[in-house]
Amino acid sequence: MVLFNNSSKIVLIVEYDGRRYYGFQWQKDLPTIQAELESAIWKLTAERKRVIAASRTDAGVHARGQVVSFWTGSSLPPRTFVKALNYYLPGDIAVKAASRVDESFNVRRDALSREYVYRILNVSTRAPLIEGFAYLVANNLNNEIMNKASQLLEGERDISSFITSLSGVKNTLRTIYKAEVTREGDMVTFRMVADSFLLHQIRNTVGSLIKVGLRKMTIEEFNNIIEARTPGLAGPAVPAYGLCLTKVNYPDNLESKYENLFN
Amino acid sequence: MVLFNNSSKIVLIVEYDGRRYYGFQWQKDLPTIQAELESAIWKLTAERKRVIAASRTDAGVHARGQVVSFWTGSSLPPRTFVKALNYYLPGDIAVKAASRVDESFNVRRDALSREYVYRILNVSTRAPLIEGFAYLVANNLNNEIMNKASQLLEGERDISSFITSLSGVKNTLRTIYKAEVTREGDMVTFRMVADSFLLHQIRNTVGSLIKVGLRKMTIEEFNNIIEARTPGLAGPAVPAYGLCLTKVNYPDNLESKYENLFN
Repeated sequence: MVLFNNSSKIVLIVEYDGRRYYGFQWQKDLPTIQAELESAIWKLTAERKRVIAASRTDAGVHARGQVVSFWTGSSLPPRTFVKALNYYLPGDIAVKAASRVDESFNVRRDALSREYVYRILNVSTRAPLIEGFAYLVANNLNNEIMNKASQLLEGERDISSFITSLSGVKNTLRTIYKAEVTREGDMVTFRMVADSFLLHQIRNTVGSLIKVGLRKMTIEEFNNIIEARTPGLAGPAVPAYGLCLTKVNYPDNLESKYENLFN
Repeated sequence: MVLFNNSSKIVLIVEYDGRRYYGFQWQKDLPTIQAELESAIWKLTAERKRVIAASRTDAGVHARGQVVSFWTGSSLPPRTFVKALNYYLPGDIAVKAASRVDESFNVRRDALSREYVYRILNVSTRAPLIEGFAYLVANNLNNEIMNKASQLLEGERDISSFITSLSGVKNTLRTIYKAEVTREGDMVTFRMVADSFLLHQIRNTVGSLIKVGLRKMTIEEFNNIIEARTPGLAGPAVPAYGLCLTKVNYPDNLESKYENLFN
């Protein structure tokens, strides 16, 4: 079929302020990142195309390095996709880079890991210049103890205790490559790199780590939560607006082949 | 007079997102930081008091460390002023700290210097997560050359070339303690510390430094602008939203006396 043969796959790197959206994934009558991207592609190419994301962010979550793909019959060069989609997208969503890729490149299946950061501003008063991008915790957090607890998460883990419910979840085993807490001035940052994540996992993890940082929970108790493998034990979930998908990692051969995307 | 004797002076450290405001200073029928602070003080104390700022920021300019003072007949403790004013203030203005100070402490006259930063995001596409707090420049900026040019500003300087007009200006001599350009990833930051500043001075300075960074102006030509002492030569002024008053510096004896304010 001619149309199919002329079709090519485009991958975009996308940044967004998630506050106005009900997450990445399309939902009827609600503003979502997917709906905005598909609407901008339609305005540019007159094609109704489905956009696939490497990591489906929840309602309110930001992204600096979301990776999405779609098929198009358009032969516009990638740099035109960047400029034109940014023209049609709302101000809180932007395309940072674009590339035409091999049909076989699947942004979700080929991803080796996803990186998220959760930012906590450890101050006792409101903070207008950072509000909306960091969660405020007034009492002093011991970030070194938090880091020690978070290191316990690294490795091959059953993360059942860090999700709210098992319903619809087939596999709770994850490889966590990095789980660390650092501080720069008043900003305490939790960074997690894993093959993939389950709903509310990071926000429940941070909720428990904050208890550790406030000395309301010991490292041993945190470890007991990990070992218990029981949904609902960790948390409470911290607000979505502190969370940001920073990067999706792919095998070296793909990252070097599409270096304009990934650098 | 009893009322006067019972009156005390309060100093606040204030942070704000300046985008919604026509600058610090009161203007009839326009939203200003001063009007919001005075309204919150009135709601708390039922007193109509004038607020004085250490550095009157222009329309759209942010502050992380603005210092303001006012007189009050209220005997509420400073920590209550912090909490209650934050309750009454809009979300984009916050009081970070408060202290009762000696009558003789004048936040404007006693200030030794003011520190501002201007942030430039050196990327070729829109950036939703930082928009409103940094100016976007698409073409590659050479920050080392910009830094060399900016160092020429340090010292006792006639800054006439960096203001737009001499009207109303009595003294164009300033002591510039620091004028530097640094880069962290895509973020290029200009930082300037001086005894005081004149209208649009920093934004015109950054406008010229960007020309230097884009190699559209040599360091020698930048120096010629300084030497010419002619209003209107520097610029064009970059947008206000990249600018932030970060800190006001006071003599050591005041900073240590009111350490809850300044640390």
